[in-house]
Amino acid sequence: MTDTIKRRITGQHFIDGAWTGQADAFNSFDPVTNAKIDWQFANASETEVAQAATAAHAAFTQYRSKTPAQRADFLEAIAGEIQADIEAITAAAHRETGLPMARLQGETGRTCTQLKLFATRLREPLEPRFVDLANPQRAPLPKADTRLSVLPLGPVAVFGASNFPLAFSTAGGDTASALAAGCTVVVKGHPAHAATSELVTRAIEKAIERCDMPQGVFSLIQGSTPQVSTALVTHGAIKAVGFTGSLRVGRILSDLCAARAEPIPFYGELGSTNPQFLLSGILSAQAEQLATTQVQSMLMGHGQFCTSPGVVVAQKGEALNRYIATMTENLASLPAAAMLTPGIASTYQAQLEALLNHSAVTLIAQGQSAEAGHHTRPSAIRVSADDYLVSSELQQEIFGPCAVLVECENQAQMLQIANALEGQLTATIHGNEEELAQHPELIEAVAYKVGRIIFNQMPTGVEVCHSMNHGGPYPASTDSRSTSVGSDAMKRFERPICYQNMPQTLLPDDLKTDNPKVISF
Amino acid sequence: MTDTIKRRITGQHFIDGAWTGQADAFNSFDPVTNAKIDWQFANASETEVAQAATAAHAAFTQYRSKTPAQRADFLEAIAGEIQADIEAITAAAHRETGLPMARLQGETGRTCTQLKLFATRLREPLEPRFVDLANPQRAPLPKADTRLSVLPLGPVAVFGASNFPLAFSTAGGDTASALAAGCTVVVKGHPAHAATSELVTRAIEKAIERCDMPQGVFSLIQGSTPQVSTALVTHGAIKAVGFTGSLRVGRILSDLCAARAEPIPFYGELGSTNPQFLLSGILSAQAEQLATTQVQSMLMGHGQFCTSPGVVVAQKGEALNRYIATMTENLASLPAAAMLTPGIASTYQAQLEALLNHSAVTLIAQGQSAEAGHHTRPSAIRVSADDYLVSSELQQEIFGPCAVLVECENQAQMLQIANALEGQLTATIHGNEEELAQHPELIEAVAYKVGRIIFNQMPTGVEVCHSMNHGGPYPASTDSRSTSVGSDAMKRFERPICYQNMPQTLLPDDLKTDNPKVISF
Repeated sequence: MTDTIKRRITGQHFIDGAWTGQADAFNSFDPVTNAKIDWQFANASETEVAQAATAAHAAFTQYRSKTPAQRADFLEAIAGEIQADIEAITAAAHRETGLPMARLQGETGRTCTQLKLFATRLREPLEPRFVDLANPQRAPLPKADTRLSVLPLGPVAVFGASNFPLAFSTAGGDTASALAAGCTVVVKGHPAHAATSELVTRAIEKAIERCDMPQGVFSLIQGSTPQVSTALVTHGAIKAVGFTGSLRVGRILSDLCAARAEPIPFYGELGSTNPQFLLSGILSAQAEQLATTQVQSMLMGHGQFCTSPGVVVAQKGEALNRYIATMTENLASLPAAAMLTPGIASTYQAQLEALLNHSAVTLIAQGQSAEAGHHTRPSAIRVSADDYLVSSELQQEIFGPCAVLVECENQAQMLQIANALEGQLTATIHGNEEELAQHPELIEAVAYKVGRIIFNQMPTGVEVCHSMNHGGPYPASTDSRSTSVGSDAMKRFERPICYQNMPQTLLPDDLKTDNPKVISF
Repeated sequence: MTDTIKRRITGQHFIDGAWTGQADAFNSFDPVTNAKIDWQFANASETEVAQAATAAHAAFTQYRSKTPAQRADFLEAIAGEIQADIEAITAAAHRETGLPMARLQGETGRTCTQLKLFATRLREPLEPRFVDLANPQRAPLPKADTRLSVLPLGPVAVFGASNFPLAFSTAGGDTASALAAGCTVVVKGHPAHAATSELVTRAIEKAIERCDMPQGVFSLIQGSTPQVSTALVTHGAIKAVGFTGSLRVGRILSDLCAARAEPIPFYGELGSTNPQFLLSGILSAQAEQLATTQVQSMLMGHGQFCTSPGVVVAQKGEALNRYIATMTENLASLPAAAMLTPGIASTYQAQLEALLNHSAVTLIAQGQSAEAGHHTRPSAIRVSADDYLVSSELQQEIFGPCAVLVECENQAQMLQIANALEGQLTATIHGNEEELAQHPELIEAVAYKVGRIIFNQMPTGVEVCHSMNHGGPYPASTDSRSTSVGSDAMKRFERPICYQNMPQTLLPDDLKTDNPKVISF
């Protein structure tokens, strides 16, 4: 399979319907063997970035006029073409990320489900459309006919994530939701899975032909330097950005977008510590089970999920001691493993080392010693609530298989921790129904810190559905008003428009009086 | 009445339920007589700004828990208290802005209507709530129960507008929509109508008492220096900003918000030239009437409406000559008049002078000469489409009674102008139904440049209703995804939250399965 892939990969960019560029800049990398793969890729020049953005701008005037049904067909065609090439796509992703095949097959399925969810929403809109009817008799001035709809923002730049080579990358949630909204897309492929990006782009290319879409509706530019990203987000034709990645890079790009002559929305899904609050009753009854689930969840994808549970908040005592004992036992047997990229591994190592050297921190347990230098060990540490509250360095996300247990003196201190949290993608409250009812203040405090509040479940495994919210107050995301998962994600790339006194025959279909979603006033 | 007002005005800030500060920093100003009024006001110190923001933060935890019905009561109470004091409020506004009493009475009515519109929406929500029901049988993994609602963002800073002392100020659209969303508010009073702000704040104070709301739910800080504004938008407790004003000041504050450790949404409604496209058929049939309406609309509030029609685009010829002749006639009889502030008057004078000195510009007509130095003359100029397209300085908004007529060689050039426009709050296309149907490209091009596209009506007179959009692509506003007028304005101050696996008894009311707005999947 690897040879087949090598024959298929050009290493080029896909710009305005053509494959272009010199594939001599960087190689794919196998994080498991810690060695380069002989798949080579181009690094986009400023000119190539501008070509992709300009093509997206030109295609926008055609693509925005496609009906919702035509866009839905296109999204479904992309899903179909990905499914048709799933073997090569998952093999490439497996080689480039080291993630297990089963996980990658699941992620491919999720990517296709996501494309189809937006198609469903385009075919059966869920949003009302407000129409205020004219009233020529109104005094002192007649009332005009006004009708509220939405328009797509324009070309969108998408930055794929290292940890989800399919569902949050080339044809992932950002691309799918932008295309659903009527926007054209330029993807900057993540260098950690450039071949996967190219194969997925091939699937999109086929769907473009099959659905007779404008060539520039989707472009892929490859790159391994920050200059490519900077050139893309600062190009005048780009009207919004979708990004999944680190706070550090996300903030740099976000600042660039805000400083443009025309500032544009930047949707960065940046990460989170996803705190787990364990109330006393449930902890006492299920300490061992909770600890086992915690370790399982924090080990998913070797801790490289943005919803990985990196903080546990609980009250000291006998039950917590049992929790810690089970955690220790579960962790101790775990092997060290490779991470997604050498950069992620070394950042994890450095953050973990700083944590272990922190005077307030006690080690709970670590997994087995690393056999290879690029392997990292699952780890859990503990710290008192008092120390946690005054040490912002303990509150930062550590991207990888690590959890910080915050030991509280009492339930009041758990509330204090909740109130001191930074913005989070998720947090979970574990408690039996009776004790949950006794902690309305804690529930409310947690809700105001998160995009998704969970009860008695782990945060990993974000459902693709209409009611999902994957986002949260800064620094979990750069724009808490938006979600990057779920069908509402397409709202990020729309803006309202009011049509006043427009002749009935010229009105967009969704605003005609016979549309069942119209609410007239 | 002026004496009564003087006795009632403290000149102080209203912070956390108390009137405070030294009223010795600046005076109200009468733009008609061009002289100070003996009403004196305080300039908030950084400490006072921080007190207001901190009080808003403390009050937020109580106010956010009020039911939608309680918030609706509060908004209606504010409207009632304003109505009860309308005589003093309009008298103060008349003195401070020079706007006619009838206009100010209308604007007070509009302010109250606006408060009540949000109350209506709170009592009868229009938005669906998505609920994905649990499916424990789903393979390979069970599906959780997820439900999507919204939460208020937190304390909001509001900057009132010079040109709408009531509807876009202290209890105007930004304040009303923020309070409706469940946010607390700190208003920075506009120094051009500080007494009006204080009287409106008195009304809000009474409503706070009557409805038993937390003291810090609303604060007013007075100020005439940029430092007050800077301190407010950079205070950590402030989570969003509503602003109506100039592009220059709006951009400064927007940049400050983006550069914060925690960036926050900045909703700036900044202004617009609101182009009027005159198609040939209607121009030929109604040249005189169109010119008369144009002059009437551009003279409303002496041109100081953000929807003032500042650009007219039409094809050269006999009909346009008749249009110009009528425009000249109407303009020539108009008196010069005072503007809202000396600053606005001098900016208008300078911009107009630059325009008249521009080599590509020909004067059409001006109103009568100014008798007083602080009076400004209504003016119309013309320029060729070719010159307009290459001169960005001709495309800028001139805040005041001025219009630029862009003379096109043909209809294709009108489309070129539409495509070259910057973002606008509104634009109007004037045409009979037959010719409108023949110009789909022009309509589409204009739609993508504006927040509201109008047919055969002037843009002035923004309706307060559910289907309104008052915003638009930059630089019309800093965030095209939002409206500052209409009931959707409250969405600016909300963000989504997903409740996963929450016990039914603890769910917020809007997410309970028996809520008729719930759509279950």
